[in-house]
Amino acid sequence: MTLPCNRINFITLAVEDLARARAYYEALGWVPGFTGDAVAFYDLKDQKLSLFSREGLARETGRPSGALGPGGVTLAQNQPSEAEVDAAYAHALACGATAVRAPFKTDWGGYSCYVADPDGHLWEFAHNPFDPLDADGHLA
Amino acid sequence: MTLPCNRINFITLAVEDLARARAYYEALGWVPGFTGDAVAFYDLKDQKLSLFSREGLARETGRPSGALGPGGVTLAQNQPSEAEVDAAYAHALACGATAVRAPFKTDWGGYSCYVADPDGHLWEFAHNPFDPLDADGHLA
Repeated sequence: MTLPCNRINFITLAVEDLARARAYYEALGWVPGFTGDAVAFYDLKDQKLSLFSREGLARETGRPSGALGPGGVTLAQNQPSEAEVDAAYAHALACGATAVRAPFKTDWGGYSCYVADPDGHLWEFAHNPFDPLDADGHLA
Repeated sequence: MTLPCNRINFITLAVEDLARARAYYEALGWVPGFTGDAVAFYDLKDQKLSLFSREGLARETGRPSGALGPGGVTLAQNQPSEAEVDAAYAHALACGATAVRAPFKTDWGGYSCYVADPDGHLWEFAHNPFDPLDADGHLA
């Protein structure tokens, strides 16, 4: 194994209805890359987020489709300020997310909130005053 | 919203037993950054993977702990060759992963396999001849 272990190339979310999932993410502002009948890719910096039909992921992995709902995984987008956390939360709800936890002061000194996408996958929008972002919003 | 939408700063996996989860990932070769009683961070390129106790994530999100098991999310590490997919699969099993799908030729022309970590989170090791990696193993 010559490549570093600390890397993730694809993050894939199983979705029940790809058109519904795409509509939500693209309303939020996500810009699609390659899209097909069962999958849509969103290019991140040297990485991709995929939305993949739950039936397709079930076939691919051999897992029952019913086991591929939302679970104990969260994806976080950090924001430069508390006000932008509030704005991201409101924007997600306006785009069809379900409220999970309204913005709150965290016990680690930050400010955070949680929403669920149309398939129940959890997203956090957080402001962490101790972990600055670069100009493109990546961890500095 | 001035920051680009296509970005993910943290990928968090809920784990039942942080010591067990850390032992698995670090046996695989993951290099920890900050670690605490309930959380361990692994630095990626301008991003972090977190292992977070299921109880802690339940408190943080307000979701019942029982809802935070593995689900319909996969994380993928691509490999430069089919042989390295076979090696990654064998290495993961040797480190305590559960076999989910042994290496197989995919219908998109690649070569892939799936394992589950000690909490059941799905990881894919894949070779994609159409999507080259850079020298550090990120999507080129």
